Amino acid sequence: MEGVDLNGKVEAGAVEELGGPTNPMVSPLLTDLYQFTMAYAYWKAGKHLDRAVFDLFFRKNPFGGEYTVFGGLEECIRLIANFKLKDEEISYLRSVMPTCEDGFFDYLREIDCSNVEVYAISEGSVVFPKVPLMRIEGPVAVVQLLETPFVNLVNYASLVTTNAARHRFVAGKSKTLLEFGLRRAQGPDGGISASRYCYMGGFDATSNVAAGKLFGIPLRGTHSHAFVSSFMGLDEITDKALRSQDGSRTCEDFVGLVQSWLHKLQLADSLSGFFGETNQSELAAFISYALALPHNFLALVDTYDVMRSGVPNFCAVALALNDLGYKASGIRLDSGDLAYLSIQARKFFCMVEKEFGAPGFGKMLVTASNDLNEETIDALNKQGHEVDAFGIGTYLVTCYAQAALGCVFKLVEINNQPRIKLSEDITKVSIPRKKRCFRLYGKEGYALVDIMIGEDEIPPKVGERILCRNPFNESKRAYVAPQRVEELLKCYWPGDSHKPREVLPSLSEMRDLCMQHLDQMRPDHMRRLNPTPYKVSVSAKLYDFIHFLWLSEAPVGELL
Amino acid sequence: MEGVDLNGKVEAGAVEELGGPTNPMVSPLLTDLYQFTMAYAYWKAGKHLDRAVFDLFFRKNPFGGEYTVFGGLEECIRLIANFKLKDEEISYLRSVMPTCEDGFFDYLREIDCSNVEVYAISEGSVVFPKVPLMRIEGPVAVVQLLETPFVNLVNYASLVTTNAARHRFVAGKSKTLLEFGLRRAQGPDGGISASRYCYMGGFDATSNVAAGKLFGIPLRGTHSHAFVSSFMGLDEITDKALRSQDGSRTCEDFVGLVQSWLHKLQLADSLSGFFGETNQSELAAFISYALALPHNFLALVDTYDVMRSGVPNFCAVALALNDLGYKASGIRLDSGDLAYLSIQARKFFCMVEKEFGAPGFGKMLVTASNDLNEETIDALNKQGHEVDAFGIGTYLVTCYAQAALGCVFKLVEINNQPRIKLSEDITKVSIPRKKRCFRLYGKEGYALVDIMIGEDEIPPKVGERILCRNPFNESKRAYVAPQRVEELLKCYWPGDSHKPREVLPSLSEMRDLCMQHLDQMRPDHMRRLNPTPYKVSVSAKLYDFIHFLWLSEAPVGELL
Repeated sequence: MEGVDLNGKVEAGAVEELGGPTNPMVSPLLTDLYQFTMAYAYWKAGKHLDRAVFDLFFRKNPFGGEYTVFGGLEECIRLIANFKLKDEEISYLRSVMPTCEDGFFDYLREIDCSNVEVYAISEGSVVFPKVPLMRIEGPVAVVQLLETPFVNLVNYASLVTTNAARHRFVAGKSKTLLEFGLRRAQGPDGGISASRYCYMGGFDATSNVAAGKLFGIPLRGTHSHAFVSSFMGLDEITDKALRSQDGSRTCEDFVGLVQSWLHKLQLADSLSGFFGETNQSELAAFISYALALPHNFLALVDTYDVMRSGVPNFCAVALALNDLGYKASGIRLDSGDLAYLSIQARKFFCMVEKEFGAPGFGKMLVTASNDLNEETIDALNKQGHEVDAFGIGTYLVTCYAQAALGCVFKLVEINNQPRIKLSEDITKVSIPRKKRCFRLYGKEGYALVDIMIGEDEIPPKVGERILCRNPFNESKRAYVAPQRVEELLKCYWPGDSHKPREVLPSLSEMRDLCMQHLDQMRPDHMRRLNPTPYKVSVSAKLYDFIHFLWLSEAPVGELL
Repeated sequence: MEGVDLNGKVEAGAVEELGGPTNPMVSPLLTDLYQFTMAYAYWKAGKHLDRAVFDLFFRKNPFGGEYTVFGGLEECIRLIANFKLKDEEISYLRSVMPTCEDGFFDYLREIDCSNVEVYAISEGSVVFPKVPLMRIEGPVAVVQLLETPFVNLVNYASLVTTNAARHRFVAGKSKTLLEFGLRRAQGPDGGISASRYCYMGGFDATSNVAAGKLFGIPLRGTHSHAFVSSFMGLDEITDKALRSQDGSRTCEDFVGLVQSWLHKLQLADSLSGFFGETNQSELAAFISYALALPHNFLALVDTYDVMRSGVPNFCAVALALNDLGYKASGIRLDSGDLAYLSIQARKFFCMVEKEFGAPGFGKMLVTASNDLNEETIDALNKQGHEVDAFGIGTYLVTCYAQAALGCVFKLVEINNQPRIKLSEDITKVSIPRKKRCFRLYGKEGYALVDIMIGEDEIPPKVGERILCRNPFNESKRAYVAPQRVEELLKCYWPGDSHKPREVLPSLSEMRDLCMQHLDQMRPDHMRRLNPTPYKVSVSAKLYDFIHFLWLSEAPVGELL
């Protein structure tokens, strides 16, 4: 990439073309009306160019956990890189704001984000409440227009990435995790975003073809119950020939070969009593699927009866494929007691391996996919199971356990004057000022604390003690001498400041960063039950400033 | 519209152009990979043209209720009206299915939905579990490709429309309901869809400008806390002049006029003790907003202190506007005890009306908007409040109480052979056959029962007794002599059947239909606590057939 230096930054002034947001519906109009009415009021007051600094942050980690993964940054940057109101959009705004002066619409026509600066934490990072994920600085009227789309783009992306990371955590690193949520997602964009961000949060693949194409995510999928029940019987299969894997020979009657294997399975001593007559339309479906895709035979075995029909039918087809040099992939269970059925299926596979000397048959892949979520996977783990891969849909992509993250966008400074948002609810008081944020790491490589400081303060240094204060609890403070210091907010959109800009990483780079960050978290922050809150702090100087400003802004009550 | 007859149908063969889905990301690739692998297996087996009938339905009403509103149909029809795989999409599929034969991709290149038929219930209708919302008939390989996008498009649309209808039910018909959810929605499409379907479900307006433009939904919005805190004081206001509403005169010092009103309010006997010094930066923000938009002055009054600052500041500005012939709109409360604060604010407005003879001041609009949902509105109703309009976001648009609807898409017939999907869970057994569905109404105009019959059966007639059987409980059955019979499934996409096609109604027509349907529901089905389930039934003949097929397909167990 031209204009990109060795540190992964786009040089000041260098041109790197950034396309628009993934969803073409993301436009400057995808915002709340009040952003435009406020822009008009700012403009009328001659205040629209006032230089404002806003922080985008959330107040509470989702899912009862103590961490969040940041997603959605790239989409925000793509929006501002292409932020321009079209004539027809201006005409529409004129129609809904009929009392506004013409000059305002001329102003709107001119605005873009060339004088907006965006600092942000790297996408895919583990993040915590109150610390700005993004700091947006620019003319107040323009930055306010960005509030709604930025919060929209970050909220769900971060929520679903976090949900994926939590599912990965409970499933363990050795399992394959498949995102199967498109049909239950909250709309098409919900489905496509879910696939993208679940991959970032640690999933291995998706069933969503559009997302696979857009983002290069690996795809997975075989067949449904409808495929099985669309077959009536073996006589439907007319072309019964299958070439061997190496192309050296052709089995002219693959159906007969499968039937002979089914017969052998029925007669095998170790398997006797497991099953009798299997369902012949299911067998026809399996054979048809194997004839079409012999390299990738994975069968859904629960349409009629898993152990009495699906698994034996699968094994007969898999053994016949084995004769021709193909290796079947495995089975999928989509109902019933997944722990029990996976164990029974595994036993059956092992017995087949032993009985017929089919190498590797016992290691056949077992995928499970019925209404899975963190709790059911945890329960399966406790019961013991033989599932290798989990296909997860509804609960994952709709974030069923908590369907929204509460990211907010708060004014922290205007014309160099720090601003605070007060609230009777102390957790809703915002942290004023333009700030820098750092993550301090301890000896064992774990992250210890995040600290926010005023922009003009001296940053924390490796090996030097610094006092970290809880911003709203005066008694909570601690000295930290970090072994490593990481600055969190980096410049992703320099406006006209002529600073170099961070390159947007690829999805798989963000996924790697996410995995690395999760590994750097102390295990007690990650556990599902009563996790320890990660510490978020401010410098002593910022602490004092917050409380000075708070007192000066809060009205003094009068007990009447 | 040419080719549309008097009954609102598009004549067979008439051309009515249907644009693509609202979200351009909805394409034939927005589906699960297994739909394509199955299509390949069907094609390899020479089975891809087999005529299949699928039902799209759900099994359980959401939110613990006993009704659902059907949404998403128009988007499905727009998808199939434009269903064609592009060359680059075919190339991508070829890359992810490398072992498939070339002929298959030639076949994919040719497919469209010209031989698919879609029958559906009208969008906006109240619907119930097990009754097909849509019946899709066509070549099995093509119809399977539609499964994922159809279910995706219907699930969230129906869920959020239902959620909106439930919020309308609890708020009552007299309140104004505003959808404010864009920033918390599950992605951009989630936000845009929410605005559209909440309007359909009975909301009055949205804050989402893009949705307003796309669908003609009324827009609402004023200003945020950031607007208030962006002002430092009255000296920021340089242009203080305001022309009167009728244009006859100009107040050169509107700031002075407001200050004099604030002084009068402070001195008024009836208001004394209510407040002392108000926040001057808030006052500056209100004045600036009023100077910009004097026709539409609605102020957010909780940035500092509702009763000690926000409401008096608002009243001073509103009274000054009143002097110039403008009528202020009202206030918005976004925190605190909404019941108490709305009552206090109302009292204050009434006292101002009385004290200063400001006509209509007591009826000032009070909007509330902090984390509202069905429960909080219900609680407000029980406590008593003075809120006129509710602005609802997170809980509404993310369907927080239940983030997914479980629509499914099941094969019910192939090549005229009825198919059943069995399950150990009786609620998951599908109802086989190509069916017709009717809603039977009683004397008082309420809907009594929905009944499904085989396609070749005689439909129910007004005044004639018909036996309605619960499909899975032999003891539950009742005779009904309907006063009115409504056929539910209508032809929305005739394929090449040369039948006339229903015209897609406008959003406001669907909203009207939804309101009308909700009114036709017996109140005990609608109530929030322990609602009565609405009855869904099958004809005696269909009942017998289901159980005949079930027995013939289910494996006979053996107790070992």
